[in-house]
Amino acid sequence: MTYCVGLLVKEGLVMMADTRTNAGIDNISTYRKLRVFGEDGKRIVSIASAGSLSTTQALINRLKEGVVMPGKEEPEYVETAPTMFRVAQIVGEAMVGAKKDIEALVQEQEGVEIGVTLLVGGSIDGRAPRLFLIYGEGNFIECGMDTPYFQIGELKYGKPVLDRMLTYRTPLTKAMKIGLVSMNSTMRSNLGVGLPIDMLVVKPGQSTAALTRIEESDPYYHDLGDRWAKALMEALENIPDPTYPLPGA
Amino acid sequence: MTYCVGLLVKEGLVMMADTRTNAGIDNISTYRKLRVFGEDGKRIVSIASAGSLSTTQALINRLKEGVVMPGKEEPEYVETAPTMFRVAQIVGEAMVGAKKDIEALVQEQEGVEIGVTLLVGGSIDGRAPRLFLIYGEGNFIECGMDTPYFQIGELKYGKPVLDRMLTYRTPLTKAMKIGLVSMNSTMRSNLGVGLPIDMLVVKPGQSTAALTRIEESDPYYHDLGDRWAKALMEALENIPDPTYPLPGA
Repeated sequence: MTYCVGLLVKEGLVMMADTRTNAGIDNISTYRKLRVFGEDGKRIVSIASAGSLSTTQALINRLKEGVVMPGKEEPEYVETAPTMFRVAQIVGEAMVGAKKDIEALVQEQEGVEIGVTLLVGGSIDGRAPRLFLIYGEGNFIECGMDTPYFQIGELKYGKPVLDRMLTYRTPLTKAMKIGLVSMNSTMRSNLGVGLPIDMLVVKPGQSTAALTRIEESDPYYHDLGDRWAKALMEALENIPDPTYPLPGA
Repeated sequence: MTYCVGLLVKEGLVMMADTRTNAGIDNISTYRKLRVFGEDGKRIVSIASAGSLSTTQALINRLKEGVVMPGKEEPEYVETAPTMFRVAQIVGEAMVGAKKDIEALVQEQEGVEIGVTLLVGGSIDGRAPRLFLIYGEGNFIECGMDTPYFQIGELKYGKPVLDRMLTYRTPLTKAMKIGLVSMNSTMRSNLGVGLPIDMLVVKPGQSTAALTRIEESDPYYHDLGDRWAKALMEALENIPDPTYPLPGA
């Protein structure tokens, strides 16, 4: 299981991914799902993945070796693509190739899940950050102002807080808080999603990344979870009791 | 899509179900998913269903005609079963039969979803209410004090608020509020779940039901949704800004 979320607001891009990988609940380990490519100040491209770890690794390997796009002869690289849109195309093409590799390997064996979904976000040459969701078939969509976030993996638990609170005008630090609450709600309800959280922040005009790993012992994250839980209880208390009929009343 | 939740606390049982049925997003209608059997003061049995409407109707029909249990000859009825446990067994047996009926009809046609999950709750002869979750295979589990709720259908959106707030000691009216917030969060994030909500409340010692339909125009439900949304925004404001590194800082 996995939960990754990307928030694209006016003030910047926030990407978060948990790090729990499990093959059955008795085989749990920590694995980085948020990878960062590029060079600070020039290019930041981050890829978060949900789904088959083996397909993901095959895909990342293809990106490193270079991807020959349809109708082209020379390989192209995430590290040198001119735009984030071209990066998304390259990653999509790598997805198609990686899936074919893995399908050829596992063939008709049943019950082997090889699907992967990706978030690809970043900024090149100081341009405004962009965020894409790459489907398992290699096609993709771009995040826009109306719904300024994308989620992959175990997304439903943490969706209501995003839908209720996040807009394109939300300040960057507030967007970070909303993302962390969404993570916290997911981890509270699904053991397959767990700490540490990897978080990347990119601001417009810089193409520079701030990358943080939020560990089990992180005091801010714990305080955020405690305060949120307490505030929800208070919010509930402050809602008047329902006046719907009770039995025997 | 569907979302049904049953909350079993010390002071009683609350069952809620939305009423939206859809076969594709261009074919949406309202359909009662919370059915009530019995006679006020003597027996209240409520069945909420998520999944195939045709399997559900075949199952309900079997319950009305009576279910011959394995090794028995006479049909048994939800309306006369001696205990809620026996009710769950009868419903489970009806599930197996209904599924076979439908399977025989649709046979090998692909993409026909015939699965159903049920919540069965109620009280007989004034005894404490009990709540069961019946799987698509007819087997079932009973709700206990450690996790005093069951959900079926689109359950993930509304699970965090239950996990954070509900305990067996939660007062009945508060449990109703928590259930309604869980419904509200689900409807906010998933168009397949919609008003009206059917709500049933049963208190121990009575075997009497209070049944409410919460319509689109219901002022309390709207107020609850507004207050909850406002309180979440305030809760977020009251959490200090994160001190994690920002790019270029």
